[in-house]
Amino acid sequence: MSEDKASNRMWGGRFASGPDAVMEAINASIDFDRKLYAQDIRGSLAHAAMLAETGIISTEDEQKIAHGLNTILSEIEAGTFEFSARLEDIHMNVEARLAELIGPAAGRLHTARSRNDQVALDFRLWVKEELERTDQALSRLLGAFLARAEEHAATIMPGFTHLQTAQPVTFGHHLMAYVEMLGRDRSRVRDAIERLDECPLGAAALAGTGFAIDRHMTAEALGFREPTRNSIDTVSDRDFALEFLSVAAICATHLSRLAEEIVIWSTPQFGFVRLSDAFSTGSSIMPQKKNPDAAELIRAKTGRINGDLIGLLTVMKGLPLAYSKDMQEDKENVFDAAETLDLMLAAMTGMIGDLEVNRQAMKKAAGSGYSTATDLADWLVREAGLPFRDAHHATGRAVALAEEKKCALEKLSLEELQAINPAITDDVFSVLSVSNSVRSRTSYGGTAPAEVRRQIRNWKKRLKRDASAAKSG
Amino acid sequence: MSEDKASNRMWGGRFASGPDAVMEAINASIDFDRKLYAQDIRGSLAHAAMLAETGIISTEDEQKIAHGLNTILSEIEAGTFEFSARLEDIHMNVEARLAELIGPAAGRLHTARSRNDQVALDFRLWVKEELERTDQALSRLLGAFLARAEEHAATIMPGFTHLQTAQPVTFGHHLMAYVEMLGRDRSRVRDAIERLDECPLGAAALAGTGFAIDRHMTAEALGFREPTRNSIDTVSDRDFALEFLSVAAICATHLSRLAEEIVIWSTPQFGFVRLSDAFSTGSSIMPQKKNPDAAELIRAKTGRINGDLIGLLTVMKGLPLAYSKDMQEDKENVFDAAETLDLMLAAMTGMIGDLEVNRQAMKKAAGSGYSTATDLADWLVREAGLPFRDAHHATGRAVALAEEKKCALEKLSLEELQAINPAITDDVFSVLSVSNSVRSRTSYGGTAPAEVRRQIRNWKKRLKRDASAAKSG
Amino acid sequence: MSEDKASNRMWGGRFASGPDAVMEAINASIDFDRKLYAQDIRGSLAHAAMLAETGIISTEDEQKIAHGLNTILSEIEAGTFEFSARLEDIHMNVEARLAELIGPAAGRLHTARSRNDQVALDFRLWVKEELERTDQALSRLLGAFLARAEEHAATIMPGFTHLQTAQPVTFGHHLMAYVEMLGRDRSRVRDAIERLDECPLGAAALAGTGFAIDRHMTAEALGFREPTRNSIDTVSDRDFALEFLSVAAICATHLSRLAEEIVIWSTPQFGFVRLSDAFSTGSSIMPQKKNPDAAELIRAKTGRINGDLIGLLTVMKGLPLAYSKDMQEDKENVFDAAETLDLMLAAMTGMIGDLEVNRQAMKKAAGSGYSTATDLADWLVREAGLPFRDAHHATGRAVALAEEKKCALEKLSLEELQAINPAITDDVFSVLSVSNSVRSRTSYGGTAPAEVRRQIRNWKKRLKRDASAAKSG
Amino acid sequence: MSEDKASNRMWGGRFASGPDAVMEAINASIDFDRKLYAQDIRGSLAHAAMLAETGIISTEDEQKIAHGLNTILSEIEAGTFEFSARLEDIHMNVEARLAELIGPAAGRLHTARSRNDQVALDFRLWVKEELERTDQALSRLLGAFLARAEEHAATIMPGFTHLQTAQPVTFGHHLMAYVEMLGRDRSRVRDAIERLDECPLGAAALAGTGFAIDRHMTAEALGFREPTRNSIDTVSDRDFALEFLSVAAICATHLSRLAEEIVIWSTPQFGFVRLSDAFSTGSSIMPQKKNPDAAELIRAKTGRINGDLIGLLTVMKGLPLAYSKDMQEDKENVFDAAETLDLMLAAMTGMIGDLEVNRQAMKKAAGSGYSTATDLADWLVREAGLPFRDAHHATGRAVALAEEKKCALEKLSLEELQAINPAITDDVFSVLSVSNSVRSRTSYGGTAPAEVRRQIRNWKKRLKRDASAAKSG
Repeated sequence: MSEDKASNRMWGGRFASGPDAVMEAINASIDFDRKLYAQDIRGSLAHAAMLAETGIISTEDEQKIAHGLNTILSEIEAGTFEFSARLEDIHMNVEARLAELIGPAAGRLHTARSRNDQVALDFRLWVKEELERTDQALSRLLGAFLARAEEHAATIMPGFTHLQTAQPVTFGHHLMAYVEMLGRDRSRVRDAIERLDECPLGAAALAGTGFAIDRHMTAEALGFREPTRNSIDTVSDRDFALEFLSVAAICATHLSRLAEEIVIWSTPQFGFVRLSDAFSTGSSIMPQKKNPDAAELIRAKTGRINGDLIGLLTVMKGLPLAYSKDMQEDKENVFDAAETLDLMLAAMTGMIGDLEVNRQAMKKAAGSGYSTATDLADWLVREAGLPFRDAHHATGRAVALAEEKKCALEKLSLEELQAINPAITDDVFSVLSVSNSVRSRTSYGGTAPAEVRRQIRNWKKRLKRDASAAKSG
Repeated sequence: MSEDKASNRMWGGRFASGPDAVMEAINASIDFDRKLYAQDIRGSLAHAAMLAETGIISTEDEQKIAHGLNTILSEIEAGTFEFSARLEDIHMNVEARLAELIGPAAGRLHTARSRNDQVALDFRLWVKEELERTDQALSRLLGAFLARAEEHAATIMPGFTHLQTAQPVTFGHHLMAYVEMLGRDRSRVRDAIERLDECPLGAAALAGTGFAIDRHMTAEALGFREPTRNSIDTVSDRDFALEFLSVAAICATHLSRLAEEIVIWSTPQFGFVRLSDAFSTGSSIMPQKKNPDAAELIRAKTGRINGDLIGLLTVMKGLPLAYSKDMQEDKENVFDAAETLDLMLAAMTGMIGDLEVNRQAMKKAAGSGYSTATDLADWLVREAGLPFRDAHHATGRAVALAEEKKCALEKLSLEELQAINPAITDDVFSVLSVSNSVRSRTSYGGTAPAEVRRQIRNWKKRLKRDASAAKSG
Repeated sequence: MSEDKASNRMWGGRFASGPDAVMEAINASIDFDRKLYAQDIRGSLAHAAMLAETGIISTEDEQKIAHGLNTILSEIEAGTFEFSARLEDIHMNVEARLAELIGPAAGRLHTARSRNDQVALDFRLWVKEELERTDQALSRLLGAFLARAEEHAATIMPGFTHLQTAQPVTFGHHLMAYVEMLGRDRSRVRDAIERLDECPLGAAALAGTGFAIDRHMTAEALGFREPTRNSIDTVSDRDFALEFLSVAAICATHLSRLAEEIVIWSTPQFGFVRLSDAFSTGSSIMPQKKNPDAAELIRAKTGRINGDLIGLLTVMKGLPLAYSKDMQEDKENVFDAAETLDLMLAAMTGMIGDLEVNRQAMKKAAGSGYSTATDLADWLVREAGLPFRDAHHATGRAVALAEEKKCALEKLSLEELQAINPAITDDVFSVLSVSNSVRSRTSYGGTAPAEVRRQIRNWKKRLKRDASAAKSG
Repeated sequence: MSEDKASNRMWGGRFASGPDAVMEAINASIDFDRKLYAQDIRGSLAHAAMLAETGIISTEDEQKIAHGLNTILSEIEAGTFEFSARLEDIHMNVEARLAELIGPAAGRLHTARSRNDQVALDFRLWVKEELERTDQALSRLLGAFLARAEEHAATIMPGFTHLQTAQPVTFGHHLMAYVEMLGRDRSRVRDAIERLDECPLGAAALAGTGFAIDRHMTAEALGFREPTRNSIDTVSDRDFALEFLSVAAICATHLSRLAEEIVIWSTPQFGFVRLSDAFSTGSSIMPQKKNPDAAELIRAKTGRINGDLIGLLTVMKGLPLAYSKDMQEDKENVFDAAETLDLMLAAMTGMIGDLEVNRQAMKKAAGSGYSTATDLADWLVREAGLPFRDAHHATGRAVALAEEKKCALEKLSLEELQAINPAITDDVFSVLSVSNSVRSRTSYGGTAPAEVRRQIRNWKKRLKRDASAAKSG
């Protein structure tokens, strides 16, 4: 691409001197907004087709423009297109090349359009596609969780609160907690898509246009539900980017929690899981190490997405309408968060699928720490008619005694237990094993394997339903 | 309330020494979670009713409990209830008082329940109610905007990009941009309510319970769509709080933008609007000042809500399941953001209603800065058949000439214009007035007064529809 | 305090109607800035003394003012002062009461002063004092760390990377890592004090004053190094608050890391430490639990301080000079972060002092996971002359063999080791014990107990030096 | 570089299968840490020299290593070095190439070193250099401000509070407010350099080493004040990165404030300044626009740096010692913030140097809005002996009258003024002109041109002193 094109800057008529080098460095966005090339060309094709259909440009010009744009698309995808920082952004790079290819007709493409609605369109299309990608990635990860949850619906592990053993649960039940989180993430993604599904094209600089354009036509051609309703809002709005970033931050938070658990579970002290070689690394100095790098990176990258979110919130705060150049700072944050979240979801999907589970270690840990103390208290309520608070107190004394004797709760003798509360009978020992404890918790959403399996079945149906809806939708 | 109750700490059976003073200071939440008293008592009433209905406790005990709880509710609302930091939180304060009032039966209320699902319920109920309040506040603010937009559907002002005059628009059109933003905020609020509408009660500590409780019954009694599906997720989830905070941050961002505009428009230099005395203040040293304090505070408080959001995201990052005490840091952020957003919405509603608009200043400014240059370019495209880029260039030369002559575009002579492009005719002057410019932008969502009024009508219908849906829903 | 004072609002001469209720709610700062009462009165006393000394007011008036201010100080400290939201802030509350007490002379106090420099002074004084408090709290925490580090200079524990056993270290060495962090925090605190040590008084509204005031005199009286140098900067600057918040955020990050370690070390799986009853709590449903609540809360509160920091950064971003009302949002963030950090430091000091350390569990863990593999590699380099990379490789094979045989490295036979590398001799076993490993790491700053003790001695000297510097400073 | 090297992964001895593609994508850091190549090689050269000096490796090996490293440096700078993602990071890329170039001796370089202290060194060196660059950039920007401040020491403009005209000030005085801010930034930069000036090399993996290394020697060779004192802290510490980011965030906040002012001052309504063509751009649709893009981008990029800061704070929160892979997320945030801040400083330096100032517009605005009302109040205090509060009230009434008469304060007649307060004499008119007002504010740091010039002289001396200190330092 010749330097001549650069001198043909669109505001060239008025400026005496060229922009300074530092200005070019701070101002040019082509290094990152080239990512929008496909959306930019798609939008221009739809705009040109509408201009021709409404008689604003001739069919002949429209055909030239379409041919030229498709040529440029091929050039970019083939890697032969030369991007120029002096042409600032993807829009001017494409337009300048179009002028080279088809001459003056290129100048008609920008009729009834501004870079303000053009970039709003390109970016919104990109975010919409990214949200669809996230939806698919979430669906894959949900599938991975459901498969492992089914396998481990009855695998007993300690349920933790405060990272202390609380009550025994099943590993399948624990994994299904993440299914709920990711299910909410997915519903946030769908809501965000629904909300942004309005086409900016035709808002022009900020006031709409006097050309008799047909905004419903371009909206439909580009797959949007409808055109936006207010041209000023259209060019000043970046809600779709903020909403994507907040959805991403909450989703990343979920992944970071499992990542933390994997790091802790992989220690020799816990030994609950073992990562596959594919998702761990060694040490340059300590040959024996097997490090949960992927989990640590997932945990860390949450901070990055939070930073992207706060970055754009700060940019948009207190910005007068309509378009300000500040808004050019919207893209890198979103691109970074999107790439990061994609990677986190893919890595977690791989890790979950590969995770080797040590059932023995989990079960052994589940039995330590007096994890069935609540079951004892509940037994006292149910069978001995104690108010819960009294039962809780009695159980506390039983735990203190077991601690003193350094034995498990079920190793206390009946006499010892009766000394604490005379209503206790031999029957109590049936509730003090972790297996019975887990099996007993059959309340809706509880950890009993039968209940866990029921929730897995429901989720599988739901995933299948969503998939067919997506296909037909 | 006697200190005796404090010694009856629920884990009293096991701990040798009392918590340190600094521990009490860092650990007690009663200073802020007392805000949840109504939700806590409502949840306990529903829980007790269900325990009686399912035969887990006797009807007699249930009646005592209900009577005791209602007494406590009255005491709190009358201001006679004595809260104690040694009892840590709202749950234990209520429970301890219940024991004083009704004796041992109080101890039966906590059957099949833990503070983990109890606080999850209380807080979720509170957030749900706050979201409903926000929805109502948004509705009121939308009403205020629509009223002023209607009044100013044809009031001409400069449309800005980069805070430079770009093209003339109407003030009504500008206000309607905020209607779009707040409409999206409202739809985010509704989505958030829909998503959190699941009842945590019955998840117990984290694993569910072996008591034969009926979670659908409590869910219905408390106005939730259904019970949550996974007990571990239920006690570890704070998505509803994160989603509230991100919805609040985006909404605050919108308000901050208008606040910035009001600050700028109120300067003597702009003079577009004048705040009522009710929403401005004076200076302690400069008697002539009339400061847009309310607008500045709205602008600033956005930072506060962003901080609340990032605060809770940071708390939740990397937290292993299920409940960790870290999660106690969820409430103050949410309470602060809620109170702040309520105040921002109320203040903006008042300010918008009161705002005195200087139509003359707006119109005069709209005509400066060659704001109809685009109209000239468009005319050259439409009437003289120039490609847009050429028309843009020609217009640039016309603006440069007008600047040189220090006159408005429409004050250039036909000869001068024809020297720039010979195709220009006398007809061009019809598009160079701001009124004609505004009137011409009739594209869907454009600034033409007729189009603005159409969008106002649609929004009014939508608001009315939403209001009747809310009533019947 | 009578309502009359309220009507005597300082801008009363000009405003027709009173501020709206919502305006009062959003505008009044007295609920939080009353915290500045002592600073406000101290500043006024110094200002009045200077005004008298320079002859701007009479000595008689100054005496009345001083007497009145001291009366107010007593009233506030006795809790008999009635604060009024209608008088907005601490400055006007004090001034109005002064007028009640001493009549017209009160009106002379505000000569050559504005609320802009007054609030800048009050807040800066408060932040300076808070930084001094933080310095003291850090000093106490450093003392607690040094005491425990000395006690455990030779207590062996596993050193972790990626939370996997890496190499044996001593617990004292680990604690000394926190001493380094807190030492840096302290030096940041001292730098911040140094930087803010300039007196704002005399900047007036923003432009300085025409009264012949003596700013060096008030600076000295209030304990500042010098007066500020630019009146506009003086009233628009909140760097001292931002710097306090960023110093606090980094310090909190340090505390959060140790808090995370304490949570993990307290699990039954690790069992390295046991918190005293004073810093842990029980469960409402699970009688056996001993939860590390204080550690979890310290970990969580870091998010809160980060939120406070980002909140004020967002407020200050893009704020035109000089004073804007947005800056009223500076105080609550700082007060909240200060109170939070104070509590975190106090709780950590208590916890560290109380922590019960399980030397056996630590030592046992230090020996697992082939933690001396690096020592084997280093031996091969040193004694057998292998390049490190080859030694690393050979060690990797030894670890693999030991893993296969499910034994410790030192349990491999000499023949097995020689099969991996024939240069290995019997001498190698001397480096494979954790005690020898730890003792060998004598490089400067290394984990050898002698080296750890040397660093402890140096730090003790440094603390003592700092303490006497503070006394004489 | 052959793929063979990749298979020679340093932990190759133990892992059965290769890392997954997604693992490579999430794990490899070479795309960004290649930026550290010069620091990495410098560190290795110093380390090898020390190993030879202390006899740990032979001089011959050291010479081979040095030659190889210098070759690699040339290759990288010539662009002929092939980086490989399979070799993960800059350290392994360099090491693998070194092995190709010099054979087994390469394996001796990693003696008594780990990637943990190596990356701590490389990154710390980089941050130190960036801080030096920032210091230089701040110095250049300070120079630009001082030059313009001197030129405009007596140029009258309105001083704003709440963006309302408050009191007249000089433009030089306003610019000097930024000199104070940037001066504080610079002092924060110097403090940060001082604090990080400790050499990590020799901490090895986390525990130090048993080799008899000389850490003071490498520290000196690499230009550090001393070696770090605790090996665990050394590899787990990222305070220097957090401190850089918080220093950058505060500095960016300052720049954003001036950027906001430039945007507002450039509006046709204010018209105080005109940006040079070099720092503004045009519009694609509105030919008349001259947009303050550089200022808007500076304002926006503050959000980006805030995001970088919060990102790393979130990463580091709750991270157990010593090294975790999470810490790999430290670099991109810092690199991004550094590049952004560099650009912001350069752009602001250019803009300030180029700014065209409209003295007439500024002076006219300074006289509007009753900006000398305070001078009237002060006159009443000084000359008529009124308490300030009474004088303030009287002035309020004068302003109200002038507003009613739509005239300036000085256009009120003596009679009208005396009706408000009979003590007013003809002399009052001397204080009502903006020139007299500005000239009168001679308090230390006030806006009187003589005082402004004094502060400029002092700052010039200080800059010169700093520059010679830097040269000799």
